[in-house]
Amino acid sequence: MGEHALLNMSAGPIEGTPRTLRALSRQIMYHYDPEFADIFDDTTGRLKKLMRTRNDVIIMQGEALLGLEAAAFCTIDADDKCLNLVSGVYGHLYAWYIRSFGGELLEVRTDFNKAVDPADVETAFKDNPDIKIMSVVHCETPSGTLNPIKEICQIAKKHGSLTIVDAVSSTGGVEVEVDQWGLDICVVGPQKCLASSPGLALVSVSEEAWEKMRTKKNPVRYSYMSMLDMKEQWLVEKEKRRFPLTIFTSEVVALNEALKQLFEEGPDAVIKRHQRVAKMCREGVKGMGLELWADSEDICAPCVTAIRKPEGVEDAKLRRHMYDQYRVLISGGFGDLNGKLFRIGHMGKMAQPVYVAAALAMLEKSLKDIGYPVKSGSGVGAALEAI
Amino acid sequence: MGEHALLNMSAGPIEGTPRTLRALSRQIMYHYDPEFADIFDDTTGRLKKLMRTRNDVIIMQGEALLGLEAAAFCTIDADDKCLNLVSGVYGHLYAWYIRSFGGELLEVRTDFNKAVDPADVETAFKDNPDIKIMSVVHCETPSGTLNPIKEICQIAKKHGSLTIVDAVSSTGGVEVEVDQWGLDICVVGPQKCLASSPGLALVSVSEEAWEKMRTKKNPVRYSYMSMLDMKEQWLVEKEKRRFPLTIFTSEVVALNEALKQLFEEGPDAVIKRHQRVAKMCREGVKGMGLELWADSEDICAPCVTAIRKPEGVEDAKLRRHMYDQYRVLISGGFGDLNGKLFRIGHMGKMAQPVYVAAALAMLEKSLKDIGYPVKSGSGVGAALEAI
Amino acid sequence: MGEHALLNMSAGPIEGTPRTLRALSRQIMYHYDPEFADIFDDTTGRLKKLMRTRNDVIIMQGEALLGLEAAAFCTIDADDKCLNLVSGVYGHLYAWYIRSFGGELLEVRTDFNKAVDPADVETAFKDNPDIKIMSVVHCETPSGTLNPIKEICQIAKKHGSLTIVDAVSSTGGVEVEVDQWGLDICVVGPQKCLASSPGLALVSVSEEAWEKMRTKKNPVRYSYMSMLDMKEQWLVEKEKRRFPLTIFTSEVVALNEALKQLFEEGPDAVIKRHQRVAKMCREGVKGMGLELWADSEDICAPCVTAIRKPEGVEDAKLRRHMYDQYRVLISGGFGDLNGKLFRIGHMGKMAQPVYVAAALAMLEKSLKDIGYPVKSGSGVGAALEAI
Amino acid sequence: MGEHALLNMSAGPIEGTPRTLRALSRQIMYHYDPEFADIFDDTTGRLKKLMRTRNDVIIMQGEALLGLEAAAFCTIDADDKCLNLVSGVYGHLYAWYIRSFGGELLEVRTDFNKAVDPADVETAFKDNPDIKIMSVVHCETPSGTLNPIKEICQIAKKHGSLTIVDAVSSTGGVEVEVDQWGLDICVVGPQKCLASSPGLALVSVSEEAWEKMRTKKNPVRYSYMSMLDMKEQWLVEKEKRRFPLTIFTSEVVALNEALKQLFEEGPDAVIKRHQRVAKMCREGVKGMGLELWADSEDICAPCVTAIRKPEGVEDAKLRRHMYDQYRVLISGGFGDLNGKLFRIGHMGKMAQPVYVAAALAMLEKSLKDIGYPVKSGSGVGAALEAI
Repeated sequence: MGEHALLNMSAGPIEGTPRTLRALSRQIMYHYDPEFADIFDDTTGRLKKLMRTRNDVIIMQGEALLGLEAAAFCTIDADDKCLNLVSGVYGHLYAWYIRSFGGELLEVRTDFNKAVDPADVETAFKDNPDIKIMSVVHCETPSGTLNPIKEICQIAKKHGSLTIVDAVSSTGGVEVEVDQWGLDICVVGPQKCLASSPGLALVSVSEEAWEKMRTKKNPVRYSYMSMLDMKEQWLVEKEKRRFPLTIFTSEVVALNEALKQLFEEGPDAVIKRHQRVAKMCREGVKGMGLELWADSEDICAPCVTAIRKPEGVEDAKLRRHMYDQYRVLISGGFGDLNGKLFRIGHMGKMAQPVYVAAALAMLEKSLKDIGYPVKSGSGVGAALEAI
Repeated sequence: MGEHALLNMSAGPIEGTPRTLRALSRQIMYHYDPEFADIFDDTTGRLKKLMRTRNDVIIMQGEALLGLEAAAFCTIDADDKCLNLVSGVYGHLYAWYIRSFGGELLEVRTDFNKAVDPADVETAFKDNPDIKIMSVVHCETPSGTLNPIKEICQIAKKHGSLTIVDAVSSTGGVEVEVDQWGLDICVVGPQKCLASSPGLALVSVSEEAWEKMRTKKNPVRYSYMSMLDMKEQWLVEKEKRRFPLTIFTSEVVALNEALKQLFEEGPDAVIKRHQRVAKMCREGVKGMGLELWADSEDICAPCVTAIRKPEGVEDAKLRRHMYDQYRVLISGGFGDLNGKLFRIGHMGKMAQPVYVAAALAMLEKSLKDIGYPVKSGSGVGAALEAI
Repeated sequence: MGEHALLNMSAGPIEGTPRTLRALSRQIMYHYDPEFADIFDDTTGRLKKLMRTRNDVIIMQGEALLGLEAAAFCTIDADDKCLNLVSGVYGHLYAWYIRSFGGELLEVRTDFNKAVDPADVETAFKDNPDIKIMSVVHCETPSGTLNPIKEICQIAKKHGSLTIVDAVSSTGGVEVEVDQWGLDICVVGPQKCLASSPGLALVSVSEEAWEKMRTKKNPVRYSYMSMLDMKEQWLVEKEKRRFPLTIFTSEVVALNEALKQLFEEGPDAVIKRHQRVAKMCREGVKGMGLELWADSEDICAPCVTAIRKPEGVEDAKLRRHMYDQYRVLISGGFGDLNGKLFRIGHMGKMAQPVYVAAALAMLEKSLKDIGYPVKSGSGVGAALEAI
Repeated sequence: MGEHALLNMSAGPIEGTPRTLRALSRQIMYHYDPEFADIFDDTTGRLKKLMRTRNDVIIMQGEALLGLEAAAFCTIDADDKCLNLVSGVYGHLYAWYIRSFGGELLEVRTDFNKAVDPADVETAFKDNPDIKIMSVVHCETPSGTLNPIKEICQIAKKHGSLTIVDAVSSTGGVEVEVDQWGLDICVVGPQKCLASSPGLALVSVSEEAWEKMRTKKNPVRYSYMSMLDMKEQWLVEKEKRRFPLTIFTSEVVALNEALKQLFEEGPDAVIKRHQRVAKMCREGVKGMGLELWADSEDICAPCVTAIRKPEGVEDAKLRRHMYDQYRVLISGGFGDLNGKLFRIGHMGKMAQPVYVAAALAMLEKSLKDIGYPVKSGSGVGAALEAI
């Protein structure tokens, strides 16, 4: 009597709120409908406010990976020395982009259940004063962990490096201060804590980053990956501006509505809500006798909780059982973490005690159903105690 | 970041499924759009199948009460002896209609946490062989209890009485067999176990009932309450038929979609689903140390669980706290039962373990928050054990 | 590749705007969801403003006919002398209600393509100083004509009569001044010029009308048709109020959104828009050589244009052709006018030059297709000249 | 009382049908929701059927330009000789991609109101037997013209060249036979004749094209522009497949619904519908005394009609007037054609006589309003005569 999952507690894309979905269901606008320009501008304005930046914010017509790859493509010159920080799957993948576009790769790596240590970053910069670009992931969604990007980026800026930050799943759920922390290119996903649709990449670009793009040997222009196109064709006088490509207007309309809701609640309140349910979820997980994936709760993400797969449980079977029997959707491990952990997302619309309680209850039940010993009510009970 | 309640576990109207809501969001059709007649006919056809009847089924443009009052208005002649069975608020209210339209009222009454005893009905008929019309409520939603209408209506038919049955909240969640049980006029609400919108009254009418309406001294015609209008203007040759009034087409379209979903799942499966979560809910309630309102679990309704208000708890305060803090909506007592109990609905779309678990968890938490001692996890834990 | 009619230019119910449909598609709210009371109050507040009244405005859960019949039922005492004014189908029908509820019927009648003459009303009152209630239709949608209710009602009030006004299809499209014109009970439909859904009856009730209802021999209470129930159960202190029946919340939410749009545009601007397209439509009709139904353009309604069926054209065939070939929906004649005329609606959302032009174009084409001589472009051309 | 344009007759993105919009409004699915894989597969299956191909069809998460650029990026090796055919803006732009990715550029060019002559293509191949890749645009939307890609691609295949075809705006509105005509890479847009949303690129890839991608010196992998990623990660055994990036599920769901509607109507019927309204539009344009942009009606596109801007009319002013006064949206010229022409789109949902008539009527009126002499009804009249 329903429709796919009754409760989507995956690591994202997550559910849109009813208001956001209604915005998405509006008639598709022509991208040159005069009304649309206003909505577009209002949306980038709200993004700037959310990201606490005076930098330009551009919207790219593709999912967040487009922004991440484009950041490398548009800035890296052949043989630029690039420092890539790796504490998880997405950090690991970024090395590929750096090499593809001709950068010279340096890395600081740590285990995928730990965070990058700023001291190691400091050392890397001291050893390599000619680093041009540093890339780092704020929230490693596959690990459910956060890196201390504030400290890290301030180190990079001190050493004169450009910073590229993957804040795809963190923005909205935890503080991100683009200007104060020195994030030159910061890529945000609408489909995580902002609770909108996944088909856009939201990118703030500092003047320093624009300069690097313009002075690159072969500046990237007239390309789907070009950030300069947006700068040079759209961010000009109003009368002259045009989109370098067709924007899917409805997604911008939906994002605009999602941001309105976020600001109505208040960015700080939204962050607190994420912290509260993340804490609640961790207590629930521990309460039912499971173990968190992260080495320390201090680095746990506010948007998703990664749980070490218990001995004797088949992760895929567990998730399939939860879905088939109770129509509750959680996520497995991704990339190298596949089979080692599973994840409960609690971001955006889903960052609510009632949903976390529901997910924990059905996780308890599902574990029990497939033969893993859990005391009924132990997880939910502990979670309820935590709020 | 949301919209009114996150979880509506009220006694109804309840939430529509996404498919049903999308049907409701279709452009409003002109009621004489040629396409609409087909949808209308398909809908009454499905209703007949659901109610297991060959009787006519009509759709009235008003909520279920319109059908209930109209059943009395259209059939009762001055001084007709009418037997009204009372085990709750709605049974009690029906006496008003009988008196308003000039019927002579007889009643069999029982406490509002019990069911009518068929033996008492048999006695009433034996004592009053001239009873013309008997009225009974299948599910007393305010009490969360069921009356044994199968036995009761068979007694009435044996004694030659017309039967009027309020199956508003039961149909879809528990068996209703119109023809086999002898229900002459059976009124169903779309907004309960059928999970559609509340603005329609769905009524099956037997040939015997039509005859009573036609042979009444002043047959009710050209009236908003007239059932005969639908019979004589719509249930005629296709070329000649017209609606006696403006139908809100979208509600019929939504109901059609709701019924499609019900038949895709299967009426029996839907009934089992309701039974399962009702059992789960009752175990959860008892598990957290609360008491069911119904005298016996045998008469508990599949669509809503009524819970006796514990000493020292202010019912309205509890519900308001659940709503304000966790955005979960449950119902209070209605009519004479106001302040004596509160109710968790679990019907239609909401009849799912994950939703019942969520509601119980937040009820536990809310009771605790306002100072009533509940062991965290006790209710949810017991509920999970029951499925 | 579509969905029923591409263009619904019927006499209503008409299409909702996208905003209104999105409101209708919101999750169905429990009628006691605390948020709903605010929306309900805001809606009645806007209705008062629109109708220019300080009287109570109530919302009944049924289509406009419910409000019209209830107005008679709730006010007419046996043998009350009632003056019914008839210039069309709905005026004619009202006599039935008056007789049903025991009133003594007087009528002033005119042809169905003319308006009631206030002088005849004055005469009727002079001849019958004991008239208690006068009933009149503002816009006779089946004829596309308006009655001068301002003058008529002021006469009635001068003679001490209660006035019942059917402003179902006029309100929003032409001025309606409840207080200044003395409309005691004024019934409005949401599905005409207000461009919302048809399942509600919106009724303003003066203190004098309430008094009549209360002092009637058998006041109508605890009935689907009772207006007093709304007065006595809902229009009381906020803490004590309850709905006498289940409100289909979504319809109120949709109406609220429709009214917001109306006020954003401005009631006067909306009226002008209706006048403009009505004029445009009439010129188009004449331009293609057809004849208006109304005796005089002075009495033509702003919401619908009735066109005399030309000799040799089968009205039903014409409309079916337009629908089947071009997916454009217009209305035929209703009641006694069936087969004598057809109608192009232009109300609410549809009161736009582009839609009227489109309807006229396809009417031209359809007439030609079925063999009636029309010069291509003659209708649209004349219509475009008129704006 | 409305929402942006009342009628969007732009060159696209155009309006979605109500069914498609409802699909788009479904709750956003997690891309690994088990249900989604089925919808995805069904969608590519329908696309194959529509494009008449046994080749793989992939869906890229970005607008059509992504597919066009990626086709060049994924196949062109440094110094590959590439023949680019230019009859309009998009053909002209393709040269940029070829040069960006290191190809050696050859061109056959013609005026932007003409079509490429297959004889010139034959000559080019004879003169350059080592051409590796040929690129051609089927419908030049900015010019409203078609190129004879059937003949052209068969020539290319005969000479052993790979073919890249921009069928973005033609597919669905005119025949596209991928296998029979020899289209190795064929890029389709959902937002034109398919009447879905613009955020996806739909690409069929022949085995020969895959081979070229795999054997290229630096095959494009792990990139937003990689087609091989979809081939190697998704088009594998079902158990192993994963998306190389996050798919915006709702767009695929919407496209699926759009394709269902297209097949319900029938691809041939849809093509005929486009032809019919295109003819109608051209006759209307000429009827009001305007001139078609295209050199010959034989090459006019079925999806959009380009109209030469008349002397003395300011194109931008005309369009703004139509939008502001009548809320009808048409398109201006694009790229080099800006200011030389304006365009009425009539594709997908909008390819209906009633919409074309409406657009022509308001164009007539707007021209007149701004002082250009048009006889009222002349355009619409001529258009109606043509169908």
